[in-house]
Amino acid sequence: MRVPALRFGPEGVERVEDSVVEEVPVALVYNGISHAVMLATPTDLEDFALGFSLSEGLIASPAELLEVEISATPAGIELQLRVTAERFQGFKATRRQLAGRTGCGLCGRESLEQAILPVPKVAETLAVPAEALTRAIAALPEVQGLHRQSGGVHAAGWAGIDGEIHLVREDVGRHNALDKLIGALRRQRIDPAAGFVLITSRASHELVHKAASAGIQLLAAVSAPTGMAVRNAEAAGLTLVGWLRGSGFSVYSRVDRITDPAA
Amino acid sequence: MRVPALRFGPEGVERVEDSVVEEVPVALVYNGISHAVMLATPTDLEDFALGFSLSEGLIASPAELLEVEISATPAGIELQLRVTAERFQGFKATRRQLAGRTGCGLCGRESLEQAILPVPKVAETLAVPAEALTRAIAALPEVQGLHRQSGGVHAAGWAGIDGEIHLVREDVGRHNALDKLIGALRRQRIDPAAGFVLITSRASHELVHKAASAGIQLLAAVSAPTGMAVRNAEAAGLTLVGWLRGSGFSVYSRVDRITDPAA
Repeated sequence: MRVPALRFGPEGVERVEDSVVEEVPVALVYNGISHAVMLATPTDLEDFALGFSLSEGLIASPAELLEVEISATPAGIELQLRVTAERFQGFKATRRQLAGRTGCGLCGRESLEQAILPVPKVAETLAVPAEALTRAIAALPEVQGLHRQSGGVHAAGWAGIDGEIHLVREDVGRHNALDKLIGALRRQRIDPAAGFVLITSRASHELVHKAASAGIQLLAAVSAPTGMAVRNAEAAGLTLVGWLRGSGFSVYSRVDRITDPAA
Repeated sequence: MRVPALRFGPEGVERVEDSVVEEVPVALVYNGISHAVMLATPTDLEDFALGFSLSEGLIASPAELLEVEISATPAGIELQLRVTAERFQGFKATRRQLAGRTGCGLCGRESLEQAILPVPKVAETLAVPAEALTRAIAALPEVQGLHRQSGGVHAAGWAGIDGEIHLVREDVGRHNALDKLIGALRRQRIDPAAGFVLITSRASHELVHKAASAGIQLLAAVSAPTGMAVRNAEAAGLTLVGWLRGSGFSVYSRVDRITDPAA
């Protein structure tokens, strides 16, 4: 979207036209029942539908998501998802927990206890050379198409153990960018355990949780981790990297997956 | 919180100890009924309780919030808020709408329509010199105490029309930082309409909505606005500034509140 703006700079004021990224309400509706409304950038919505369903534990495998239909309404975008009858049976319990997590007036006093779901353990198959991390982060800006246009857009990228970036997804919400990436990996039949994930934000609890739920063994963020993210990464056995820049990075958990000739 | 880390840099690998910011589940419970659980940095929680209640439209004035009690539980922090009986009567309808906004399985097909509440109109009393904006943003890093320690923390600051910063609040969530600032302004009896608000993030829909609901007439973000934020700012009659840096800034709506000798 292009919007007019007035730019105040050292040389005075000028009229400009800026490209700004879109943010629209996206409703996820499972078998006719509305589940959540997210504010998201309306790109790669099939990836988002699958990734959100997997990373929120609503389905256990891509095969359980039978169909995704996207429709635009005046109020936003509706993703109509059809899941298997077996999975839909189990939804009632899951839905009640999710409502507690994201904020709902109907959950009563149990909501704090339900707020943080247990984080799953990840596998132990990955080994990444340290230089693959710095190589990948150096390459990321090149492939952040939306961000280059508009700024203010987060990216989640997936790189192989040589540091080459194979997939990138972008969104105004960093958790949405990761959900889109997780969906894209599965739709393209790439094994999430064969490489690592980069995110252009800090590492928060929910990103570690989503990554672990999707079978990602190493999550690398360009900014700081939170205390809760570090604790979750330890509990999941996930390697959490923070402050990833051209000059280096910091490792907060499970450094053994990183191989370094200097170490 | 201090955590051990391994730092991989150009000179090799060393053991370090990093300060990381906390992120904990904070439940907001109104008159005994759980309303929402937010992940937040557990500082300035009285400000947060009042600011969230005001900016989400749960109360109309600080006088309607009678008491806030903070208790720590193993699962997180609980804010027990007591509001007036009259206000609590009106909660059922509001609560249903909020559930739709933040994601709830019980809202059915109406959730997309309820997702975006109408944005209120702001007053027309503010005039800010252009140089007050650049002066304020230059001063902000000095007062971001948590961010200097740990990184990865957003700040919301309030400045007078001379560009002097009077209040700052910080949080891992930018919307929480703004809620804390809004609560702090009201608790310290500072009129939000007498100055402007700076945020260290992009300008998204929810920040514009919260600012307008709190009577803030000018919101200035260091990064990009989203398309929805620009439309909301226009609808609210709020002045939205983006890309605020030492060298200048861009104005996306209601530039008439900014006075500039060069314009």
